[in-house]
Amino acid sequence: MDINERFSRNSVYAHNVIEEDNAVTEMVQQTGAKVIEANKGDPAAFFHTPKYMIDAYIRALRERKTFYSSPLGVPELRKAISSRYRRMYGLSAGPDEIIVTQGVSEALRFINAIFINQGDRAMLFKPCYPPYIPDLMMYGGRPVYAEYEEEHGWRADLDRVRRELQKQKRTPKYMLIANPNNPTGTVLGRKELSEMVGIANEFGMPLISDEIYDEIVYNGAKFTSLASVAEGVPYAILNGASKDYDATGFRIGYAVIPGQDRFSAEIRRRIGEMASTRLSPNTPAQYAVEQAIGNVKAHRNAVGLMVKKIAARVNACVDAISRSRHMSASRPEGAFYVLAKVDIGRLRVKDEKEFVSRLITEEHVRVARGSGFQAPPGYIRIVALAEKRVLEEAVRRIDSFCDRNLNNKR
Amino acid sequence: MDINERFSRNSVYAHNVIEEDNAVTEMVQQTGAKVIEANKGDPAAFFHTPKYMIDAYIRALRERKTFYSSPLGVPELRKAISSRYRRMYGLSAGPDEIIVTQGVSEALRFINAIFINQGDRAMLFKPCYPPYIPDLMMYGGRPVYAEYEEEHGWRADLDRVRRELQKQKRTPKYMLIANPNNPTGTVLGRKELSEMVGIANEFGMPLISDEIYDEIVYNGAKFTSLASVAEGVPYAILNGASKDYDATGFRIGYAVIPGQDRFSAEIRRRIGEMASTRLSPNTPAQYAVEQAIGNVKAHRNAVGLMVKKIAARVNACVDAISRSRHMSASRPEGAFYVLAKVDIGRLRVKDEKEFVSRLITEEHVRVARGSGFQAPPGYIRIVALAEKRVLEEAVRRIDSFCDRNLNNKR
Repeated sequence: MDINERFSRNSVYAHNVIEEDNAVTEMVQQTGAKVIEANKGDPAAFFHTPKYMIDAYIRALRERKTFYSSPLGVPELRKAISSRYRRMYGLSAGPDEIIVTQGVSEALRFINAIFINQGDRAMLFKPCYPPYIPDLMMYGGRPVYAEYEEEHGWRADLDRVRRELQKQKRTPKYMLIANPNNPTGTVLGRKELSEMVGIANEFGMPLISDEIYDEIVYNGAKFTSLASVAEGVPYAILNGASKDYDATGFRIGYAVIPGQDRFSAEIRRRIGEMASTRLSPNTPAQYAVEQAIGNVKAHRNAVGLMVKKIAARVNACVDAISRSRHMSASRPEGAFYVLAKVDIGRLRVKDEKEFVSRLITEEHVRVARGSGFQAPPGYIRIVALAEKRVLEEAVRRIDSFCDRNLNNKR
Repeated sequence: MDINERFSRNSVYAHNVIEEDNAVTEMVQQTGAKVIEANKGDPAAFFHTPKYMIDAYIRALRERKTFYSSPLGVPELRKAISSRYRRMYGLSAGPDEIIVTQGVSEALRFINAIFINQGDRAMLFKPCYPPYIPDLMMYGGRPVYAEYEEEHGWRADLDRVRRELQKQKRTPKYMLIANPNNPTGTVLGRKELSEMVGIANEFGMPLISDEIYDEIVYNGAKFTSLASVAEGVPYAILNGASKDYDATGFRIGYAVIPGQDRFSAEIRRRIGEMASTRLSPNTPAQYAVEQAIGNVKAHRNAVGLMVKKIAARVNACVDAISRSRHMSASRPEGAFYVLAKVDIGRLRVKDEKEFVSRLITEEHVRVARGSGFQAPPGYIRIVALAEKRVLEEAVRRIDSFCDRNLNNKR
């Protein structure tokens, strides 16, 4: 029997481009070399998780809050999230309209699990966060893509999105936007977002908005939550403690699914049932995040400082790239990624995968290939969380790699 | 459009009988009543998680181990697990043959995700832990059941299992055993387990053994890990920190998948790819569990004390039931559940679901209905973790509920 016959056909789609070079990186590190790791968007690896959150986590542990929580999350945290959305975006969503998950990745999985039959479609905007795709395809779904284009400042032509949707035999089960977007750093304006809501309503697609970077916005951009403009179709906002609260390793995400209509209620009910089969997210971490969100002043200080540093680092990275002989990049407005175009066509390198892998072994710089994000050919994603001089060094090394590998025939 | 058309057909299977009465319980509790909660197998709600583990968790937090870990788990924890299996079961499985998960539930999901196509079968032994079923069915699978029968001390007739398998058009994708079993408390003997391995080999089915209660064994029973008898087909052992280590709320599980053959390696590779799409389990909790497992002496003390108490409580519960006018129960050998037969047919109660729900509202006792565990009609599962007097009180209340609701017509 062919070994693949042993396995599920959909399971071949499980892959994460951000992690695909773990083995080669470890090999290089075992030689004693220090690799500049700019592949994983992990703020807690660069900025200490704030002390007030660590203290709250320790308190929960000391109080032995180490049992299963409700599958939907501890009531205190759901209340804190409800208050956050009222305070920041004027949204009236009670704790009953909020479900705590093991990271946004689990919330996303629940959404695919409840919506996707074999052969269904979902609409994504590309370039996008890689796990959106396997998560959808594992349940038998297929993406329909709308495109963010660099020549339009990584924004989408919404008339084209509309035409794309009209071509579809069946309406996609949902439309997923990430705002700010990973890897392009696009922050959607209110008008743009409203128009997307209009499209979702036109076609009757529920909207999912991944807003995990909602407080990491800079360079003059202004964030608008889907909560501020949504109307009509049901929607879910995905968020969590990982980025704004600098606590990736806590694995606390959540879905806000407001609305008293029957469809929204049924989405909540089905996700709640999904959640019940895995019992509970980490309990003491939930209490830590309750405090993280509830202590508004401490959070404002912490995130303010972090975003200032992130903006400086992202801009330094873009500036270094603008001086590069082989790369170019647009300036992001949110998150902490720089999507750089490299002239790989001029290099003696087969493809982006080889480019990224050889960068690790030859230059000890690790980035992620853009093709994994459904970017047009020739892009790499640089995580701009390291200190300025490290990012500048990374760009220098990429440049010298390109210098050394120039295709002389051209 | 029918609202169900909006959703995935397989998502209707997501349900957990253990959690299904959360709403009615909360309503009763809001009146100020104290409900005896004997529905959820959560040792950490009854026994304090040991201090040495809490201290290790706090240390990891203070050291700001709050970033993403490797998707497969932190190397230190995988090493500790590898040592545990060598020490306890003589198994040679390196850290590379171990994957850390967000509870056993996630490991189980990964297994279903990599194996199950729409229409596939998997073999389960019933009565079984409820989430095994929706997890399988969410991916389009269907269970083929082997039966543990109370008249045979909750053991299976393995010749019948063989005949059942011969009737199947297609071989089930895997055979899943839980040892000790929830809810029957069955602990498989070495001979029995070897015979199951024989059947798995005869039919070429990979074996999955959920051994989350492997140290919670009493009443003279001796636990045998699948690791000690497995040969031939690939296998996975699922375990974690929740039960033996009394840390349900940490959400740390793992899968040990030994074997250098191509099939076992491919199982690991595919589960690893699944894991990479959700990035990481909770990081500081992993360091706490590393210590929990690594500090053999502290653990031996803690689990020894806990199992002694659990055995006394389980036995007290069975004894109380043996004096009951309406119930009977076999004596378990492992885990901490008592599967009690209630003569529901003699009561003015429609079904088990109504029985359990009215027990909550009328007697303030919460148990789980056996039908959710695929038990024969008339069973309920009592979690025997509360103190002796509480369990005895629960049995008394169930008895008086039955007294009050006797069907006079008979």
